[in-house]
Amino acid sequence: MHFTKTEKAYWMTEAIKEARKAELLGEVPIGAVVVHENRIIGRGHNLRETSKNATTHAEMIAIQEANRRLDNWRLEDCQLFVTLEPCAMCSGAIVLSRIDAVYYGPKDFKGGTAGTLMNLLEDDRLNHQAYVEQGVLEEECKDLLVTFFRELRLKKKQAKLQRDCSCQGTETQAE
Amino acid sequence: MHFTKTEKAYWMTEAIKEARKAELLGEVPIGAVVVHENRIIGRGHNLRETSKNATTHAEMIAIQEANRRLDNWRLEDCQLFVTLEPCAMCSGAIVLSRIDAVYYGPKDFKGGTAGTLMNLLEDDRLNHQAYVEQGVLEEECKDLLVTFFRELRLKKKQAKLQRDCSCQGTETQAE
Repeated sequence: MHFTKTEKAYWMTEAIKEARKAELLGEVPIGAVVVHENRIIGRGHNLRETSKNATTHAEMIAIQEANRRLDNWRLEDCQLFVTLEPCAMCSGAIVLSRIDAVYYGPKDFKGGTAGTLMNLLEDDRLNHQAYVEQGVLEEECKDLLVTFFRELRLKKKQAKLQRDCSCQGTETQAE
Repeated sequence: MHFTKTEKAYWMTEAIKEARKAELLGEVPIGAVVVHENRIIGRGHNLRETSKNATTHAEMIAIQEANRRLDNWRLEDCQLFVTLEPCAMCSGAIVLSRIDAVYYGPKDFKGGTAGTLMNLLEDDRLNHQAYVEQGVLEEECKDLLVTFFRELRLKKKQAKLQRDCSCQGTETQAE
Protein backbone atom coordinates (compact mmCIF):
# COMPACT_ATOMS: atom_id res chain seq x y z
CA MET A 1 0.00 0.00 0.00
CA HIS A 2 1.49 3.33 -1.07
CA PHE A 3 -0.06 6.57 0.11
CA THR A 4 0.12 9.98 -1.54
CA LYS A 5 1.20 12.96 0.57
CA THR A 6 -2.47 14.03 0.82
CA GLU A 7 -3.57 10.56 1.95
CA LYS A 8 -0.83 10.41 4.60
CA ALA A 9 -1.88 13.86 5.86
CA TYR A 10 -5.52 12.69 5.96
CA TRP A 11 -4.80 9.61 8.11
CA MET A 12 -2.41 11.52 10.38
CA THR A 13 -5.11 14.16 10.91
CA GLU A 14 -7.29 11.33 12.23
CA ALA A 15 -4.47 10.30 14.60
CA ILE A 16 -4.21 13.96 15.72
CA LYS A 17 -7.96 13.93 16.51
CA GLU A 18 -7.23 10.99 18.83
CA ALA A 19 -4.31 12.88 20.42
CA ARG A 20 -6.68 15.78 21.19
CA LYS A 21 -8.99 13.36 23.05
CA ALA A 22 -6.02 12.43 25.28
CA GLU A 23 -5.25 16.14 25.81
CA LEU A 24 -8.82 16.78 27.01
CA LEU A 25 -8.27 14.13 29.69
CA GLY A 26 -5.02 15.73 30.82
CA GLU A 27 -3.01 12.91 29.21
CA VAL A 28 0.11 13.45 27.09
CA PRO A 29 -1.49 14.06 23.66
CA ILE A 30 -0.56 11.08 21.52
CA GLY A 31 -2.98 9.43 19.11
CA ALA A 32 -2.94 6.60 16.61
CA VAL A 33 -5.09 4.96 13.95
CA VAL A 34 -4.81 1.61 12.15
CA VAL A 35 -5.83 1.73 8.48
CA HIS A 36 -6.94 -1.33 6.47
CA GLU A 37 -8.03 -1.13 2.85
CA ASN A 38 -8.44 2.62 3.13
CA ARG A 39 -10.62 2.67 6.22
CA ILE A 40 -9.86 3.06 9.90
CA ILE A 41 -10.29 -0.18 11.84
CA GLY A 42 -8.59 0.88 15.07
CA ARG A 43 -8.30 4.17 16.97
CA GLY A 44 -6.51 4.92 20.21
CA HIS A 45 -5.20 7.69 22.41
CA ASN A 46 -2.82 7.63 25.34
CA LEU A 47 -4.67 6.73 28.54
CA ARG A 48 -1.87 5.90 30.95
CA GLU A 49 -2.94 8.19 33.81
CA THR A 50 -6.69 7.67 33.40
CA SER A 51 -6.44 3.88 33.17
CA LYS A 52 -3.55 3.60 35.67
CA ASN A 53 -2.16 1.02 33.26
CA ALA A 54 1.32 1.43 31.81
CA THR A 55 0.43 -0.46 28.63
CA THR A 56 -2.38 1.82 27.44
CA HIS A 57 -0.44 3.72 24.80
CA ALA A 58 -2.33 5.03 21.75
CA GLU A 59 -0.80 2.44 19.41
CA MET A 60 -1.65 -0.51 21.71
CA ILE A 61 -5.30 0.53 21.97
CA ALA A 62 -5.57 1.06 18.20
CA ILE A 63 -3.92 -2.33 17.48
CA GLN A 64 -6.22 -4.14 19.93
CA GLU A 65 -9.31 -2.56 18.35
CA ALA A 66 -8.03 -3.57 14.89
CA ASN A 67 -7.49 -7.16 16.15
CA ARG A 68 -11.12 -7.22 17.31
CA ARG A 69 -12.44 -5.74 14.05
CA LEU A 70 -10.56 -8.22 11.85
CA ASP A 71 -11.09 -11.04 14.39
CA ASN A 72 -7.42 -11.85 13.87
CA TRP A 73 -4.15 -11.14 15.67
CA ARG A 74 -2.50 -10.72 12.27
CA LEU A 75 -2.81 -7.19 10.92
CA GLU A 76 -1.20 -7.86 7.56
CA ASP A 77 -1.99 -5.19 4.96
CA CYS A 78 -2.63 -2.68 7.75
CA GLN A 79 -0.88 0.64 8.25
CA LEU A 80 -0.44 2.50 11.52
CA PHE A 81 -0.36 6.29 11.82
CA VAL A 82 0.85 7.71 15.13
CA THR A 83 1.59 11.26 16.25
CA LEU A 84 4.92 10.38 17.94
CA GLU A 85 7.62 7.80 17.25
CA PRO A 86 6.65 4.47 18.88
CA CYS A 87 8.40 3.24 22.04
CA ALA A 88 9.83 -0.29 22.46
CA MET A 89 6.53 -1.75 23.72
CA CYS A 90 4.53 -0.36 20.82
CA SER A 91 7.22 -1.21 18.26
CA GLY A 92 7.20 -4.75 19.61
CA ALA A 93 3.40 -4.94 19.30
CA ILE A 94 3.62 -3.62 15.70
CA VAL A 95 6.10 -6.37 14.80
CA LEU A 96 4.06 -9.07 16.58
CA SER A 97 0.83 -8.04 14.85
CA ARG A 98 2.64 -7.91 11.49
CA ILE A 99 1.57 -4.40 10.58
CA ASP A 100 2.69 -3.54 7.07
CA ALA A 101 3.82 0.08 7.51
CA VAL A 102 4.19 2.75 10.20
CA TYR A 103 3.97 6.51 9.62
CA TYR A 104 4.78 8.85 12.48
CA GLY A 105 5.24 12.55 13.19
CA PRO A 106 8.22 13.73 15.25
CA LYS A 107 11.05 11.60 16.57
CA ASP A 108 11.09 10.72 20.27
CA PHE A 109 14.67 11.33 21.34
CA LYS A 110 14.08 9.83 24.79
CA GLY A 111 12.43 6.56 23.88
CA GLY A 112 11.79 6.22 20.14
CA THR A 113 12.61 2.78 18.75
CA ALA A 114 11.52 3.26 15.15
CA GLY A 115 14.72 4.92 13.99
CA THR A 116 15.97 7.14 16.83
CA LEU A 117 17.44 5.08 19.72
CA MET A 118 17.22 1.96 17.54
CA ASN A 119 14.97 0.59 14.82
CA LEU A 120 12.97 -2.40 16.04
CA LEU A 121 10.59 -2.14 13.09
CA GLU A 122 13.26 -2.86 10.51
CA ASP A 123 15.40 -5.28 12.55
CA ASP A 124 15.80 -8.34 10.31
CA ARG A 125 16.58 -10.58 13.28
CA LEU A 126 12.89 -10.35 14.26
CA ASN A 127 10.30 -12.38 12.33
CA HIS A 128 8.60 -9.37 10.72
CA GLN A 129 9.67 -5.98 9.44
CA ALA A 130 7.48 -2.95 8.77
CA TYR A 131 8.10 -0.08 6.37
CA VAL A 132 8.76 3.09 8.41
CA GLU A 133 8.26 6.74 7.47
CA GLN A 134 9.06 9.61 9.80
CA GLY A 135 7.90 13.23 9.58
CA VAL A 136 4.22 13.01 8.54
CA LEU A 137 2.55 16.28 9.69
CA GLU A 138 5.55 16.60 11.99
CA GLU A 139 4.99 20.23 13.01
CA GLU A 140 1.29 19.75 13.85
CA CYS A 141 2.07 16.67 15.97
CA LYS A 142 5.00 18.38 17.69
CA ASP A 143 2.95 21.55 18.42
CA LEU A 144 0.42 19.46 20.35
CA LEU A 145 3.17 18.12 22.63
CA VAL A 146 5.02 21.44 23.01
CA THR A 147 1.78 23.25 23.98
CA PHE A 148 0.81 20.47 26.41
CA PHE A 149 4.13 20.49 28.25
CA ARG A 150 4.31 24.35 28.29
CA GLU A 151 0.86 24.51 29.90
CA LEU A 152 1.80 21.74 32.35
CA ARG A 153 4.91 23.68 33.44
CA LEU A 154 2.81 26.85 33.80
CA LYS A 155 0.21 25.06 35.93
CA LYS A 156 2.95 23.61 38.16
CA LYS A 157 4.53 27.08 38.53
CA GLN A 158 1.17 28.62 39.45
CA ALA A 159 0.48 25.87 41.98
CA LYS A 160 3.90 26.43 43.55
CA LEU A 161 3.29 30.20 43.71
CA GLN A 162 -0.09 29.62 45.41
CA ARG A 163 1.52 27.26 47.94
CA ASP A 164 4.29 29.82 48.66
CA CYS A 165 1.69 32.61 49.11
CA SER A 166 -0.35 30.44 51.51
CA CYS A 167 2.79 29.71 53.54
CA GLN A 168 3.73 33.40 53.74
CA GLY A 169 0.15 34.21 54.82
CA THR A 170 0.39 31.62 57.60
CA GLU A 171 3.75 32.99 58.68
CA THR A 172 2.39 36.56 58.80
CA GLN A 173 -0.58 35.42 60.90
CA ALA A 174 1.79 33.58 63.23
CA GLU A 175 4.04 36.61 63.81
CA MET B 1 14.56 -7.23 46.81
CA HIS B 2 16.95 -10.16 46.72
CA PHE B 3 15.62 -13.69 46.40
CA THR B 4 17.27 -16.92 47.49
CA LYS B 5 17.52 -19.77 44.98
CA THR B 6 14.56 -21.48 46.70
CA GLU B 7 12.45 -18.32 46.52
CA LYS B 8 13.23 -17.85 42.83
CA ALA B 9 12.30 -21.48 42.16
CA TYR B 10 9.04 -20.98 44.10
CA TRP B 11 7.94 -17.94 42.07
CA MET B 12 9.02 -19.52 38.78
CA THR B 13 6.97 -22.61 39.64
CA GLU B 14 3.96 -20.29 39.85
CA ALA B 15 4.83 -18.91 36.40
CA ILE B 16 5.09 -22.50 35.11
CA LYS B 17 1.57 -23.18 36.48
CA GLU B 18 0.40 -20.29 34.29
CA ALA B 19 2.28 -21.72 31.28
CA ARG B 20 0.42 -25.03 31.75
CA LYS B 21 -2.91 -23.15 31.55
CA ALA B 22 -1.83 -21.82 28.13
CA GLU B 23 -0.83 -25.35 27.07
CA LEU B 24 -4.30 -26.69 27.96
CA LEU B 25 -5.76 -24.12 25.56
CA GLY B 26 -3.41 -25.17 22.77
CA GLU B 27 -1.40 -21.96 23.19
CA VAL B 28 2.42 -21.82 23.25
CA PRO B 29 3.05 -22.54 26.97
CA ILE B 30 4.44 -19.32 28.41
CA GLY B 31 3.46 -18.01 31.85
CA ALA B 32 4.33 -15.07 34.07
CA VAL B 33 3.71 -13.71 37.57
CA VAL B 34 4.33 -10.29 39.11
CA VAL B 35 5.48 -10.39 42.73
CA HIS B 36 5.11 -7.49 45.18
CA GLU B 37 6.20 -7.69 48.80
CA ASN B 38 6.39 -11.46 48.58
CA ARG B 39 2.93 -12.06 47.15
CA ILE B 40 1.66 -12.50 43.63
CA ILE B 41 -0.33 -9.49 42.41
CA GLY B 42 -0.49 -10.40 38.72
CA ARG B 43 -0.67 -13.67 36.79
CA GLY B 44 -0.83 -14.28 33.06
CA HIS B 45 -0.45 -16.86 30.36
CA ASN B 46 -0.08 -16.54 26.62
CA LEU B 47 -3.50 -16.14 24.96
CA ARG B 48 -2.65 -14.96 21.46
CA GLU B 49 -4.66 -17.55 19.53
CA THR B 50 -7.61 -17.68 21.93
CA SER B 51 -7.96 -13.91 22.19
CA LYS B 52 -6.98 -13.26 18.53
CA ASN B 53 -5.01 -10.34 19.95
CA ALA B 54 -1.29 -10.04 19.27
CA THR B 55 -0.63 -8.18 22.52
CA THR B 56 -1.90 -10.87 24.92
CA HIS B 57 1.48 -12.26 26.00
CA ALA B 58 1.79 -13.71 29.51
CA GLU B 59 3.85 -10.76 30.79
CA MET B 60 1.38 -8.14 29.47
CA ILE B 61 -1.58 -9.82 31.15
CA ALA B 62 0.34 -10.20 34.45
CA ILE B 63 1.47 -6.53 34.33
CA GLN B 64 -2.05 -5.30 33.63
CA GLU B 65 -3.46 -7.31 36.54
CA ALA B 66 -0.73 -5.91 38.80
CA ASN B 67 -1.59 -2.37 37.64
CA ARG B 68 -5.22 -2.98 38.63
CA ARG B 69 -4.28 -4.54 41.99
CA LEU B 70 -1.99 -1.64 42.96
CA ASP B 71 -4.30 0.91 41.28
CA ASN B 72 -1.15 2.37 39.78
CA TRP B 73 0.68 2.18 36.45
CA ARG B 74 3.95 2.23 38.39
CA LEU B 75 5.07 -1.23 39.52
CA GLU B 76 8.07 -0.10 41.51
CA ASP B 77 9.30 -2.73 43.98
CA CYS B 78 7.73 -5.45 41.84
CA GLN B 79 9.50 -8.43 40.30
CA LEU B 80 8.43 -10.35 37.23
CA PHE B 81 9.00 -14.08 36.73
CA VAL B 82 8.46 -15.43 33.23
CA THR B 83 9.09 -18.85 31.69
CA LEU B 84 10.76 -17.49 28.52
CA GLU B 85 12.90 -14.44 27.78
CA PRO B 86 10.63 -11.43 27.11
CA CYS B 87 10.16 -10.06 23.57
CA ALA B 88 10.47 -6.37 22.64
CA MET B 89 6.81 -5.58 23.43
CA CYS B 90 6.98 -7.15 26.89
CA SER B 91 10.43 -5.71 27.63
CA GLY B 92 9.05 -2.28 26.69
CA ALA B 93 6.06 -2.77 29.01
CA ILE B 94 8.41 -3.85 31.83
CA VAL B 95 10.45 -0.64 31.41
CA LEU B 96 7.33 1.55 31.13
CA SER B 97 5.79 0.07 34.28
CA ARG B 98 9.12 0.42 36.13
CA ILE B 99 9.34 -3.17 37.29
CA ASP B 100 12.32 -3.64 39.58
CA ALA B 101 13.67 -7.01 38.43
CA VAL B 102 12.99 -9.70 35.85
CA TYR B 103 13.78 -13.40 36.23
CA TYR B 104 13.33 -15.72 33.27
CA GLY B 105 13.99 -19.31 32.22
CA PRO B 106 15.54 -20.04 28.82
CA LYS B 107 16.77 -17.52 26.29
CA ASP B 108 14.64 -16.84 23.22
CA PHE B 109 17.12 -16.86 20.35
CA LYS B 110 14.50 -15.67 17.84
CA GLY B 111 13.05 -12.71 19.70
CA GLY B 112 14.50 -12.29 23.20
CA THR B 113 15.30 -8.69 24.09
CA ALA B 114 16.44 -9.18 27.69
CA GLY B 115 20.00 -10.18 26.83
CA THR B 116 19.88 -12.27 23.66
CA LEU B 117 19.18 -10.14 20.56
CA MET B 118 19.61 -7.01 22.67
CA ASN B 119 18.98 -5.92 26.25
CA LEU B 120 16.14 -3.40 26.46
CA LEU B 121 15.82 -3.93 30.21
CA GLU B 122 19.29 -2.60 30.98
CA ASP B 123 19.52 0.04 28.22
CA ASP B 124 20.51 3.24 30.04
CA ARG B 125 19.15 5.43 27.25
CA LEU B 126 15.65 4.50 28.41
CA ASN B 127 14.18 6.13 31.52
CA HIS B 128 14.18 2.96 33.64
CA GLN B 129 16.36 -0.12 33.97
CA ALA B 130 15.45 -3.45 35.55
CA TYR B 131 17.78 -6.03 37.09
CA VAL B 132 17.79 -9.14 34.84
CA GLU B 133 18.52 -12.76 35.72
CA GLN B 134 18.44 -15.56 33.17
CA GLY B 135 18.23 -19.33 33.78
CA VAL B 136 15.74 -19.71 36.66
CA LEU B 137 14.32 -23.28 36.42
CA GLU B 138 15.59 -23.18 32.84
CA GLU B 139 15.22 -26.90 32.10
CA GLU B 140 11.64 -27.13 33.40
CA CYS B 141 10.60 -24.06 31.38
CA LYS B 142 12.39 -25.33 28.25
CA ASP B 143 10.86 -28.83 28.57
CA LEU B 144 7.37 -27.34 28.43
CA LEU B 145 8.16 -25.64 25.11
CA VAL B 146 10.05 -28.60 23.61
CA THR B 147 7.18 -31.01 24.44
CA PHE B 148 4.58 -28.58 23.08
CA PHE B 149 6.33 -28.09 19.73
CA ARG B 150 7.14 -31.82 19.39
CA GLU B 151 3.46 -32.70 19.89
CA LEU B 152 2.42 -29.93 17.48
CA ARG B 153 4.71 -31.33 14.77
CA LEU B 154 3.35 -34.84 15.42
CA LYS B 155 -0.26 -33.63 15.12
CA LYS B 156 0.53 -31.84 11.85
CA LYS B 157 2.25 -34.98 10.50
CA GLN B 158 -0.74 -37.17 11.47
CA ALA B 159 -3.18 -34.69 9.90
CA LYS B 160 -1.12 -34.73 6.67
CA LEU B 161 -1.07 -38.54 6.66
CA GLN B 162 -4.86 -38.65 7.11
CA ARG B 163 -5.32 -36.16 4.25
CA ASP B 164 -3.01 -38.18 2.00
CA CYS B 165 -4.90 -41.42 2.83
CA SER B 166 -8.27 -39.75 2.08
CA CYS B 167 -6.92 -38.53 -1.27
CA GLN B 168 -5.67 -42.01 -2.20
CA GLY B 169 -9.05 -43.47 -1.23
CA THR B 170 -10.83 -40.97 -3.49
CA GLU B 171 -8.44 -41.75 -6.34
CA THR B 172 -9.05 -45.52 -5.94
CA GLN B 173 -12.83 -44.99 -6.01
CA ALA B 174 -12.52 -42.83 -9.11
CA GLU B 175 -10.50 -45.45 -11.04
